Amino acid sequence: MRAPSKENSFLRALSGQTVKPPPIWLMRQAGRYLPEYREVRAKVPSFLDLCRMPELAAEATLQPLRRFDLDAAIVFSDILVVPYALGQKVEFVEGEGPKLEPVRDWDGLKRLQLDGLAEEAAPVYETVERVVAALPENVPLIGFCGAPWTVAAYMVEGAGSKDQAAARTLAYRQPELYQALINLLVESSVRYLEGQVKAGARVLQIFDSWAGSLAEDEFQRWCVDPTWRIVTAVKAAAPGVPIIGFPRGAGPKAEHYARATHVDALGCGTSLPLGYIRSHLQSLLPVQGNLDPLLLVAGGAELDRRVDQILAMLGDGPFVFNLGHGIQPDTPVEHVARLVARVKKS
Amino acid sequence: MRAPSKENSFLRALSGQTVKPPPIWLMRQAGRYLPEYREVRAKVPSFLDLCRMPELAAEATLQPLRRFDLDAAIVFSDILVVPYALGQKVEFVEGEGPKLEPVRDWDGLKRLQLDGLAEEAAPVYETVERVVAALPENVPLIGFCGAPWTVAAYMVEGAGSKDQAAARTLAYRQPELYQALINLLVESSVRYLEGQVKAGARVLQIFDSWAGSLAEDEFQRWCVDPTWRIVTAVKAAAPGVPIIGFPRGAGPKAEHYARATHVDALGCGTSLPLGYIRSHLQSLLPVQGNLDPLLLVAGGAELDRRVDQILAMLGDGPFVFNLGHGIQPDTPVEHVARLVARVKKS
Repeated sequence: MRAPSKENSFLRALSGQTVKPPPIWLMRQAGRYLPEYREVRAKVPSFLDLCRMPELAAEATLQPLRRFDLDAAIVFSDILVVPYALGQKVEFVEGEGPKLEPVRDWDGLKRLQLDGLAEEAAPVYETVERVVAALPENVPLIGFCGAPWTVAAYMVEGAGSKDQAAARTLAYRQPELYQALINLLVESSVRYLEGQVKAGARVLQIFDSWAGSLAEDEFQRWCVDPTWRIVTAVKAAAPGVPIIGFPRGAGPKAEHYARATHVDALGCGTSLPLGYIRSHLQSLLPVQGNLDPLLLVAGGAELDRRVDQILAMLGDGPFVFNLGHGIQPDTPVEHVARLVARVKKS
Repeated sequence: MRAPSKENSFLRALSGQTVKPPPIWLMRQAGRYLPEYREVRAKVPSFLDLCRMPELAAEATLQPLRRFDLDAAIVFSDILVVPYALGQKVEFVEGEGPKLEPVRDWDGLKRLQLDGLAEEAAPVYETVERVVAALPENVPLIGFCGAPWTVAAYMVEGAGSKDQAAARTLAYRQPELYQALINLLVESSVRYLEGQVKAGARVLQIFDSWAGSLAEDEFQRWCVDPTWRIVTAVKAAAPGVPIIGFPRGAGPKAEHYARATHVDALGCGTSLPLGYIRSHLQSLLPVQGNLDPLLLVAGGAELDRRVDQILAMLGDGPFVFNLGHGIQPDTPVEHVARLVARVKKS
């Protein structure tokens, strides 16, 4: 890993400074596209096991930092650690993604236990501690959780889904039940994020991968309001730890999210146009994003051109270079190296 | 069906007039939620067969107009009629959606034949003729096609998909191949829309269901530019036929789409906030949308409240009431009746 410099550019960007070249990290920077990750992964029966084995999870977290000049690490874990910790059955089926035993009624909800969280999340906190001990002082570790809406959608659907129809229908039909589930996730997320901060995480990110499917009022109720509650509680307990919100697909609702949730920075998905990000979002707070991960798979001159375009459009304000979504497993490692080098020499 | 009035409110709204109460039609208003449709559907082995049997397709088209006070009919068909007509294998597997033999290389592309379109689309034109003959003079029939990006994505993916990753990756890796596929679809769509107009369609809609997954430059290249080419060609051949564009999920890119494609009206998806629609889109052109079809499934007081909210926000400009996406098969018929009645007495 590179030699420490005095101040981390990622933290500076999150505090509102314009940093040149901008800091860079990549969502799912630890993962299957790395051969050394696949070696670690082969040692354990399931992905979720890996999230619960601090020594291996810390190793996975650190791997991309050894290869690339990245400005932050992000703890190797998954947003579904929380429902698992609450007592829901969660499995990761190879090639199919997560499968959960759906929660769709009060009985299912009542079986979930907030008390289990501390014990089940302990391995993640230990991973954080191990990583922080191994990282150079000036490279912060990002802790994270899924936003209540996205996690609740998984919990209700029982799997990933195209448009979260089961979750959205349940929320329309039984708003009290849905609100109770969201409330449970707000409380869990606050504890879980605070636990990661106590263990040494210096930045937090809240992933709302499915914010895009919600109508306006539901976006307020299930996405903005719970996120604001989490941000408020975490900031009271852990002042000074910047929180990045990532309401993927929120489109023009991202502006309201940025104003209303009190997050410190905003993750931008691939589909948000750069002009909009600059004029409507970066004018409010630091932004992060938004290269298409599929372009990182494809590579070539178009990748270079687009990296330069993003830098030209967003580099003159507080900005963190990232993808608009997680790295794809079939991404060539050399494309990642090329991307990081290009941003660093910009 | 109701007695003809002098001027159709749908056409007036599309011409830019504010009409009170606003016209209403519903995407997939002919379909599985109607028991009489299920009877028709039971007579044929597959959904695609039904699209190719003018007598039955015309019956399906007319069914919702007999039940509800709707201001337009839309020809019962599917956007995948075009790839089928070009020679691609297309099947509709019950409960799984469409399956296509993917086109992913030049050989696959070269097997497609534009010449087959006229013959294969003939049953759709006949359906249009039959419906127009049966409809009251003042109820226009909408013809439609899928936008090139969305149809091409189906053709490449071979099925519906969460984020069109295969299609987007192919477009990054082999832009010339993808452009050739898009060009073929532009030409097919122009012919197909013109054929529907000749048969009697008085309004056209271009469905771009997957516009939401594209980054900015790809949105311009694969969505805006091909749509503009179609609109320009169809307007030259069929002046005075309004064209509604529906770039679902385009988010803040919808404004550029509205300006650059020259469509006459804009379909808005459920996730677009009403304030944004009013200030950024309805100020440019008539808008159509955007009730969540899942709320129509759920029904109840919340449905009424949201209908009123949409009317309050968009009713003072050129507006067509619709859903933000197609009617769900499990929608209770009485909810649709209630919705239409509420809009009509507003």
